Amino acid sequence: MDYSKKALELHRKLKGKISVSSKIPVRTKDVLSTLYTPGVGAVSTRIAKRKDTVWKLTGKGNSVAIVTDGTAVLGLGNVGPEAALPVMEGKAVLFSQFGNVNAYPLCIRANTPDEVVQFVHTLAPSFGGINLEDIAAPACFEIEESLQGLEIPVFHDDQDGAAIVVLAALVNATKALGIHLRDLKVVIIGAGAAASATAWLLVGREKWKPLQKVAPLFFEPPNDVILVDSKGVIEEQRADLTVWKRMLGSVTNKKRVRGTLDDALKGADVVIGLSTGGKLTPRHISHMNKNPIVFALSNPVPEIMPDDAKRGGAALVATGRSDFPNQINNALVFPGLFRGLLDSRAPHVTADMKYAVAHTLTEYLTPTKTNILPRVLDKRIHQKIAQAVEKSIK
Amino acid sequence: MDYSKKALELHRKLKGKISVSSKIPVRTKDVLSTLYTPGVGAVSTRIAKRKDTVWKLTGKGNSVAIVTDGTAVLGLGNVGPEAALPVMEGKAVLFSQFGNVNAYPLCIRANTPDEVVQFVHTLAPSFGGINLEDIAAPACFEIEESLQGLEIPVFHDDQDGAAIVVLAALVNATKALGIHLRDLKVVIIGAGAAASATAWLLVGREKWKPLQKVAPLFFEPPNDVILVDSKGVIEEQRADLTVWKRMLGSVTNKKRVRGTLDDALKGADVVIGLSTGGKLTPRHISHMNKNPIVFALSNPVPEIMPDDAKRGGAALVATGRSDFPNQINNALVFPGLFRGLLDSRAPHVTADMKYAVAHTLTEYLTPTKTNILPRVLDKRIHQKIAQAVEKSIK
Repeated sequence: MDYSKKALELHRKLKGKISVSSKIPVRTKDVLSTLYTPGVGAVSTRIAKRKDTVWKLTGKGNSVAIVTDGTAVLGLGNVGPEAALPVMEGKAVLFSQFGNVNAYPLCIRANTPDEVVQFVHTLAPSFGGINLEDIAAPACFEIEESLQGLEIPVFHDDQDGAAIVVLAALVNATKALGIHLRDLKVVIIGAGAAASATAWLLVGREKWKPLQKVAPLFFEPPNDVILVDSKGVIEEQRADLTVWKRMLGSVTNKKRVRGTLDDALKGADVVIGLSTGGKLTPRHISHMNKNPIVFALSNPVPEIMPDDAKRGGAALVATGRSDFPNQINNALVFPGLFRGLLDSRAPHVTADMKYAVAHTLTEYLTPTKTNILPRVLDKRIHQKIAQAVEKSIK
Repeated sequence: MDYSKKALELHRKLKGKISVSSKIPVRTKDVLSTLYTPGVGAVSTRIAKRKDTVWKLTGKGNSVAIVTDGTAVLGLGNVGPEAALPVMEGKAVLFSQFGNVNAYPLCIRANTPDEVVQFVHTLAPSFGGINLEDIAAPACFEIEESLQGLEIPVFHDDQDGAAIVVLAALVNATKALGIHLRDLKVVIIGAGAAASATAWLLVGREKWKPLQKVAPLFFEPPNDVILVDSKGVIEEQRADLTVWKRMLGSVTNKKRVRGTLDDALKGADVVIGLSTGGKLTPRHISHMNKNPIVFALSNPVPEIMPDDAKRGGAALVATGRSDFPNQINNALVFPGLFRGLLDSRAPHVTADMKYAVAHTLTEYLTPTKTNILPRVLDKRIHQKIAQAVEKSIK
């Protein structure tokens, strides 16, 4: 089905997908004087005396800012903050529908990572959490790192939302096929936000933070993980690596493979496409180990169409699209994750939390080859995720 | 009635007065794919090609950011962004109820006027207008001036919302008393945001912008206006004036009066209290001209209680409170004003617009001594104001 025309029509009709409204209608002087002046003065005074009461007397504890600079919108690239707005409104819709979270789409004009960091710092007092979105790598890594000191949790959905759902999908794919992740070699196409975070999560690390303790994993990490960017395989000694890719290189690619995508795919059991430009052919798939797992997650055009992947010998295929089986969709993660963060007033998103969410996704269903993940529209899964986040803190 | 206890209880129960929700429920894959990916990709692509379509395809054209740094909250002073949040949520409630505007309360951590300016610049792409709120003078003047180049309108409600409603109230007070504003001498207690903007509006000027053309006024300005700050009467040559007060001094106080509040009140017909610290006694009122007009607008404690003002000889009294006759309340202005700004996609708030709104307020009713302004709860007045704003542009 072609959703483009339908989406344009609906967006033109709605002129904005969300509305901000009063929880209580204001029809009498009495209500007006209680919600607004003079009554509200007592509430401000209370918070001025004990700042912490802002969590109990206002919407701070249920509010998330969705912040983007529009530099990496969907697969469209750096289209700017205005073009990012319909996507962020869409996220706000899902926040509301599946997490009962008040989410504000804030598409900003920022020229440097520092400007994004400064903006989020300035913004923080009225919010319980920050969802960074569609910010290009490597700026997104710098921004995330600079915001670690903030008093409220910061979550970059393109990185960790994607990584969590991919990990869950991969664990359930191995279950559906009756094989073990620890025996498998995984190739990731891409080294941007989603690809990097997926690699860190697969190897059991809290990203580039070597001292962060991670609790025992709920899965056995793959035998090896290899990333391939537009210049070829990522290997620690490669001369042109950014600091972020070099750190990734130090925990992946055990055998120090160098070369192209073809070289990486030799002896691989899983390929995960997380790059806008990546391309896979049936020939690529046929050169992997027998019955490989293929996640072709580029959107809206996958690295390889499911039929072609099957023709190349794939045992199980997943995409980012809703019109094929096995959709891998971030929307499974962020509404429940933030619900849990807000309910527990967590100051940070930890690796343990991310693994707890992935674990919850894997355990929610008995996976089959054509059904490895819960449905986004199933409200219960979002509640389960929120509970898992809360539990991971205690 | 004591609203403090009631307000604390209600705020504790509600935990936030506004909710952000989807205009359409998301129950099917079809709706999900139209509001979010993949459908939304076509909408982003369209906006990326023609940035202007963001007004038609998203909520930008119905969204206002309420931005405060919490430096001048109600009469409480510099209580910080957290303590400002319940007030800004209250404003968002009124924006929704009376203007059908999506308003987002953003209480920010800013240390300098420049940081506020930078924040608003960064924020602008997703909004159709900016409502600055509860920012202390003189920082608010600097901030307003620095934001004049923004592509969307910026309105500082404490300045101009207050000024518009005070002007309308004063014009209707003279009508109710059968006297003429042009014959009157007006004393304003205070020289902060509201007091300054009221003075500029009363003398028929677009603030400190000498070249801005203002259309013929709907009223005849008072014979003289004198401001009194905590150090005494504002007179152009006074040594300790800020640049903002000196500019005000150059268009007020024709007779170059110097001295104290007592000196200013000699021969005055109107006194307007717009200062948090100001105090008036019946003696002050009795030293003014006969049958003076007294606006004691400090909140929640007026400069003088209505009974005391009457005892001093006042012919007409107004306050900022809802529990006395003649409440002077900004909430009469901002919902309709922004509705009109958004509907006309106005890039600026002009002096003509402000006068048009004040004029609309004066004409809406036949004023009496105890009823000089429309009721905030009357939805029609907000619609009339929106229409007046739109008309003032054509």
